[in-house]
Amino acid sequence: MISESERMKNNLELLRKKTLELLPQSIDELKTYVHFRSISAQKSSMTDTVRNVSAMIEATGGNVKILENIGANPVVFGYFKAGPNGNTKRTLLFYNHYDVQPPEPLEEWDSDPFTLTIREGKLYARGVSDNKGDLVVRLTAIRLLQSLEGGLPCNIKILVEGEEEIGSRNLEAYITSNPDLFTADACIWEFGEKDQQERAHMVAGVKGMVYLQLSCTGADVDIHSMAGAYIDNPAWRLVQALASLKSAENEILVEGFYDGVIHPSVEERETARRIPFDEEHVKSLYGLKLPLITDAKQQDPREAMMYEPTMTICGIESGYYGEGSKTVLPRKALAKLDCRIVMGQEPEHIANCIERHLVKHGFKDIEVELLNAQRAYRSDLSHPFFSIVVTAAQEVYGTEIVLEPSSAGSGPMYEIGQLLHMPIASTGVGWFDSRYHAPNESIRAQDFEQGIVYIAHLLCEFGKIN
Amino acid sequence: MISESERMKNNLELLRKKTLELLPQSIDELKTYVHFRSISAQKSSMTDTVRNVSAMIEATGGNVKILENIGANPVVFGYFKAGPNGNTKRTLLFYNHYDVQPPEPLEEWDSDPFTLTIREGKLYARGVSDNKGDLVVRLTAIRLLQSLEGGLPCNIKILVEGEEEIGSRNLEAYITSNPDLFTADACIWEFGEKDQQERAHMVAGVKGMVYLQLSCTGADVDIHSMAGAYIDNPAWRLVQALASLKSAENEILVEGFYDGVIHPSVEERETARRIPFDEEHVKSLYGLKLPLITDAKQQDPREAMMYEPTMTICGIESGYYGEGSKTVLPRKALAKLDCRIVMGQEPEHIANCIERHLVKHGFKDIEVELLNAQRAYRSDLSHPFFSIVVTAAQEVYGTEIVLEPSSAGSGPMYEIGQLLHMPIASTGVGWFDSRYHAPNESIRAQDFEQGIVYIAHLLCEFGKIN
Repeated sequence: MISESERMKNNLELLRKKTLELLPQSIDELKTYVHFRSISAQKSSMTDTVRNVSAMIEATGGNVKILENIGANPVVFGYFKAGPNGNTKRTLLFYNHYDVQPPEPLEEWDSDPFTLTIREGKLYARGVSDNKGDLVVRLTAIRLLQSLEGGLPCNIKILVEGEEEIGSRNLEAYITSNPDLFTADACIWEFGEKDQQERAHMVAGVKGMVYLQLSCTGADVDIHSMAGAYIDNPAWRLVQALASLKSAENEILVEGFYDGVIHPSVEERETARRIPFDEEHVKSLYGLKLPLITDAKQQDPREAMMYEPTMTICGIESGYYGEGSKTVLPRKALAKLDCRIVMGQEPEHIANCIERHLVKHGFKDIEVELLNAQRAYRSDLSHPFFSIVVTAAQEVYGTEIVLEPSSAGSGPMYEIGQLLHMPIASTGVGWFDSRYHAPNESIRAQDFEQGIVYIAHLLCEFGKIN
Repeated sequence: MISESERMKNNLELLRKKTLELLPQSIDELKTYVHFRSISAQKSSMTDTVRNVSAMIEATGGNVKILENIGANPVVFGYFKAGPNGNTKRTLLFYNHYDVQPPEPLEEWDSDPFTLTIREGKLYARGVSDNKGDLVVRLTAIRLLQSLEGGLPCNIKILVEGEEEIGSRNLEAYITSNPDLFTADACIWEFGEKDQQERAHMVAGVKGMVYLQLSCTGADVDIHSMAGAYIDNPAWRLVQALASLKSAENEILVEGFYDGVIHPSVEERETARRIPFDEEHVKSLYGLKLPLITDAKQQDPREAMMYEPTMTICGIESGYYGEGSKTVLPRKALAKLDCRIVMGQEPEHIANCIERHLVKHGFKDIEVELLNAQRAYRSDLSHPFFSIVVTAAQEVYGTEIVLEPSSAGSGPMYEIGQLLHMPIASTGVGWFDSRYHAPNESIRAQDFEQGIVYIAHLLCEFGKIN
């Protein structure tokens, strides 16, 4: 009689062997998939990409439903029934998106962004790590399990949306108008990566986001700067308005901004501080010149990343900023402001608070436009789903697994975790230099392969629970 | 015997007739001259432009000397001797510049900025009003007088520099190293314009200028904005630093900024308030959306333009400011700051005060670069030169003439007026919608023509004095 641990070992061996057999076809599939220029910000190639995603799911034996009644970019829904030996009472939902960020600046790519290019064990293309590679990984894992005796160990649902990169603004409507379609016991989210010590990082939550455009128009035309003696300046107005929102000490000064904030528990703070973080590495990676905000505030950067709301100027523009001097009083000034919010904060409330603040402080001439709004979400880490996810990962990766209560980034987890009541873990095949949203986005071939084994193994373990 | 006034009338008639004959050649000359893209901020086409200016002066019969020993853009010096009937003891100096502002934003021009285009009686091109048109006017007037019996009524010197638009930083060195070259009894400055009531405005002084570039570098690369929780943001640093310099109520908060200010006398203030100013017209001309600064401060806009120091953001830039949202923490932020200063203020002292202020307020990470420095200058209006200038203008234009103690703009008058001890009056062929430094810069053909007559007449009157 063989032991449980030996049985698992043998099973993993089998999964690895089968993965190698399926790999060439999967890479071909990924090659086709990344070739679609599905840039949601530019509304390009959406119909063709949806057709391709549907074809991949159908080719894997799933049923497809294309949801497009809400408008904007369709959501592709795929469904796979548990096999004859599978647990028909358990359903896992995969969240993915088929849209990608714009590839610009093009001159910084070493190969065409929309042609999968393999160099030194890495696969390069726009979307390969965010998030097209992971959909192919997941479909390959399904195909792998179907080829084994007994077939799929549980039911599987796949949601592939097309507006993640522009704020998933229609996802909630798609979910609430098709409530039964997406119900599941748990959800595997889109992304995840290995750090420099090859530890796989997973997250169980995301921050929310309020992305605003602030602008001030002073005149119809640029004016000679000598008129600054009596004509007011929209650049000064915007600078003063922004300065009123956040102090030089990085305190957000907007009344009501922190309303409803659910502060992390002592345990959650401890979890954050246990996450590996190499400050010197970050400083040299980015070439940082300024002291960390968290130094002055005596905060832990990891805690701040997970639990602290932010307000970031993503961009500002006005007048002349070329070489040398131009003596102009600008006609207009514009800024982009990105607030990363935490559990309990309401995006619309925050946008309203900022507008109210500006009016109250004498800046009613500043126009505020809400470009993007998302709530934060954090799963309950005590849910048994997380021990399955982490243990299965340890077994496949053979390293420490880092489960973060929240990403510092954002995404539409609230719409699924909160509205459909399920725990969410995010895992994927990125690495520490994947360059999401940047030129030369990549995944490593070995992570792609290992990711297939992991998803297949996770599905097996998930199906075992009753 | 004919009366003095009849003689003058006849003389003016003659000047007008001759002007019409010379006009086609002058317009051709201007067409060639504006075609040179002599943008000093970009150091383009300087050598070719200098050659063109020299050729124009020589073609008019002047001696040319090109000064280039100081470095940077050469100064062209032209000299014309009084004619056989002229007053050889009197010398008038014309100050002009051959450099222009950058033409951007190009899309707002209705025709190519460097091709003289005539539409509805107006001549459009970059530099046509600031200040290439006036040099051609002056050379045409000289040619006109040379064609008359007796020739030039006085000696004439012309100084055409190539760095006015970037602060004339080498002019003082050129003047002090060639002190005898530029001596004259009086100087006619580069610019002037008619207002909406067709009154010609002249100025006898300028504000000074301190043009600074402020920048802050946070990192070597742009970073995902989620890192805003712990990585500091150069855009926020710059916004806070700027906001510390000037309050939302437009008070300049820099210690020492007002040191040495020579306040206008009661008489000078009254002179300012006598200058015609149509507030409603200005508002509709520029399409102003914000209240005037001077309203809140209960100041007279004309007094502020002449006597009040300013601090203007000419431009600011950081991160992403295109369509929609991009979640980026910018690596760098930059602003251009233009202070118009008054009599008694020292540009270097002000630059030092601003640097000291920033350090004192915790912004030692803001780099300050002085791009441009100029002192203010005001002529003594009781000098007899001004009555010649004004009376001759009344005789040619037939309207009220407005002589302003100071322009709200700047220029290197100090270097000539103070260092070479001469009164300066500025007059030119601009109109109220000339759009200096802006797209669709223009002069009106009738002003160009009248300007030639005026300069010729002024030279005749100037030569009469002993």
